[in-house]
Amino acid sequence: MTKEEVRAISLSKLRLKKDFTVWDIGAGTGAVSVEAALYCKEGRVYAVEKDEKALKLIRQNTGAFGTLNLTAVPGEAPEVLFDLPDPDRVFIGGSGGKIAEILTVVMQRLKAGGVIVINAVTMETVHRAQEFLYAGGYEVETILVNVARSVRVGGSTLMQARNPVFILSVKA
Amino acid sequence: MTKEEVRAISLSKLRLKKDFTVWDIGAGTGAVSVEAALYCKEGRVYAVEKDEKALKLIRQNTGAFGTLNLTAVPGEAPEVLFDLPDPDRVFIGGSGGKIAEILTVVMQRLKAGGVIVINAVTMETVHRAQEFLYAGGYEVETILVNVARSVRVGGSTLMQARNPVFILSVKA
Amino acid sequence: MTKEEVRAISLSKLRLKKDFTVWDIGAGTGAVSVEAALYCKEGRVYAVEKDEKALKLIRQNTGAFGTLNLTAVPGEAPEVLFDLPDPDRVFIGGSGGKIAEILTVVMQRLKAGGVIVINAVTMETVHRAQEFLYAGGYEVETILVNVARSVRVGGSTLMQARNPVFILSVKA
Amino acid sequence: MTKEEVRAISLSKLRLKKDFTVWDIGAGTGAVSVEAALYCKEGRVYAVEKDEKALKLIRQNTGAFGTLNLTAVPGEAPEVLFDLPDPDRVFIGGSGGKIAEILTVVMQRLKAGGVIVINAVTMETVHRAQEFLYAGGYEVETILVNVARSVRVGGSTLMQARNPVFILSVKA
Repeated sequence: MTKEEVRAISLSKLRLKKDFTVWDIGAGTGAVSVEAALYCKEGRVYAVEKDEKALKLIRQNTGAFGTLNLTAVPGEAPEVLFDLPDPDRVFIGGSGGKIAEILTVVMQRLKAGGVIVINAVTMETVHRAQEFLYAGGYEVETILVNVARSVRVGGSTLMQARNPVFILSVKA
Repeated sequence: MTKEEVRAISLSKLRLKKDFTVWDIGAGTGAVSVEAALYCKEGRVYAVEKDEKALKLIRQNTGAFGTLNLTAVPGEAPEVLFDLPDPDRVFIGGSGGKIAEILTVVMQRLKAGGVIVINAVTMETVHRAQEFLYAGGYEVETILVNVARSVRVGGSTLMQARNPVFILSVKA
Repeated sequence: MTKEEVRAISLSKLRLKKDFTVWDIGAGTGAVSVEAALYCKEGRVYAVEKDEKALKLIRQNTGAFGTLNLTAVPGEAPEVLFDLPDPDRVFIGGSGGKIAEILTVVMQRLKAGGVIVINAVTMETVHRAQEFLYAGGYEVETILVNVARSVRVGGSTLMQARNPVFILSVKA
Repeated sequence: MTKEEVRAISLSKLRLKKDFTVWDIGAGTGAVSVEAALYCKEGRVYAVEKDEKALKLIRQNTGAFGTLNLTAVPGEAPEVLFDLPDPDRVFIGGSGGKIAEILTVVMQRLKAGGVIVINAVTMETVHRAQEFLYAGGYEVETILVNVARSVRVGGSTLMQARNPVFILSVKA
C-alpha cells in the first residue's frame, strides 16, 4: 500500500497532464489511480490489479469519487497490458517480482516523451529495474525516501518510522 | 528553497480546493505558490517574501505560468499578513525565527476547517511550532523526511542525501 | 531498548578509557552498561534503572559476562545519583521526562573533561536537552540516526525501518 | 572516507576479539584499521590500500597510535590478498568496483566462523555483493544508515545530512 508521502512524490514525478492515458500497474487499493483519474479529467486511468479484494475497493472508490475515467483491469502484468491503449504515463506500484518483463512491455507501448515511475520496496526490484534501464541507455533518477511520522503518547511526541521506499523515474 | 519531494508532500498535506485563498509565507522563489495557484484556479494565492531577488522571480513565474491569481506580497510576516484576506490554507516555508508570532496571527485569521503546513529545517523552529500548537490544544502531525537522490558517476549510482526536513500539519 | 547500531554510535561518542567511572542512566536491560564495563576494566559502571524486571536482567548479565565492575542501582534519576561517585562519562538512555533535572545534577557531578551522551526518542526530550545545554553555553553535537535492516521474505530483501533516534553529545 | 557513526556500527558488526587477524580492504586513511589494531592487541591488522597519500597517512597513524600490529599493504585487492595470512575478520571499506572478485578470494581465505563487513556507497556494489552472497547461500544482514549531524548557524541548529551508506554483514 502506497503511503501518502510516497504517493505524493510519485504523482509529482509522473508529471501528469489533463488528457493523459495512465497505467497504474499493481494498483492495490487504487490510491494512486484515483488521484491520477481526478487530475486527468480528459484522460483515462487503467488500474491493473490481480487481487480480488483490492479490485473491489478500486471499483468502490471509482463510485465514491465519481472517477468514471478510472477502469479496474483484473489480472497480472505484463499479460493484461496488451489489451490497454498506449499510455502517456505508467506508475508501477507493485511488480510481483517481474519488473524486467513489465518494463519490457511498457517500453514498447509508452508514447514518445512518456514517463515511468516505479515504487520499489525490495532491493531486488531496485537492482533489476536499474539494471534493465541502464542497459537500455535510459536516464534514471532514483530517490530513496525515509519518512517518520509523529505519534502522541502520554504527552510525548514519538517519531515512528515508515519502511524506506525507492522511487525510480524514467523518461522514454 | 523547497525541494521537489518535500514540496510534493507539503502540497498534499495542504488538501487544496479549487476556490481556496492560500497564504505562502516565506515563499522564496515561489515554487509552492505557483503550484498552489495552478491548482486553485478559482482561488487566490498570496506569496509573502521579504527578499527582493526572490520577489522578482515570483513575479517572473507568475508571468511564465500565467498564474494571474498569484500575488507577490513584499515584506515580512506577521506584519504584512494584516492586509491579506482570510486564508483557507497557509503554507509556512520560512519563518525567519518568528514561527510563534506568525502562528499567532495565522490562527486568528485562518477560516474554520483551515489547514496550516509548516516546513522546518532548524530544530528550534520545530520546537517552537510544536510547543505553540500543543499549548493551543491543536492536533499536530509531524513528518520527518529524509530524501537521497541518485547521481551517476563513472557508471556507478551514488546516493546523495538532502538535509532532513520536518513537515508539520495542523487543522484549525 | 537501545538497538545495536545506536548503541555502537553512542559508545563511540562516549570516548571511554579503561579506568573511567561511568553512569548509565535509564540502563534498561543493561546493554550499554555491559559493553562499557567490559571496556573500562579498571573502572566502574553504575547502571541506574527503576524497573525491577530490567534490574534483574542487568544482574543476570553481570554474572554472565563476569563484569564485576558493573553495579545495578535501583531507583530513579536524579535522586539516586547523589550516592554515586563522580563520573567521567554519563550515558542517558532514558530520562522519564526529567532530562533537565537529570542534566542539572549530572553537570554538577561530572569531572572536568567529562562527556555526556544522550539518546532521545521523543521530540520533547530533544527540545529540553538542547534548550538546557545551549543555555548553559555547552557545545552540543546532535546526531539524527535512521536505520533500516533487511528482512528476507520469499527470496526478496525488504528493508525494515527502525524509529529515528537523536544522539546528543556534550563535553563538560 | 568512513565517517565516525558508520565506522562505529561497522566495527560493532565485526565482533572483534583480542587475538584476531583482520584485513581492512580499501583502508583509506586507516581509521577502521587503527581502531581494529587498538582492540586486537594480540592480533594483527592488514590495511590494504592502493593510494599512495592514503598509505602515507596509515603509516603516520601507526606511529602516532603506537599500533605496531598494523601493517600497511600497498596495492589492490584481490591481488595483494594472496600474500596475507588467513583472516578471522575482513572489513571492505572500498572495492574499486570489484566486490565480487574480492569476495571470491575472501571466502576462500576466511577462517571458519569468520565475519565480513562491507560498506557500500554505490547501488551497484550493494547489488553485486548481495547477488554474490545470496548465490553462495550465505546469511546476509543489510543495514541502511542515514545520519544527519547538527551545525549551529546564528543561534539555530540545522541538521546536515550525510550520504546514506549500506553496511552488509556476512558470517562464513
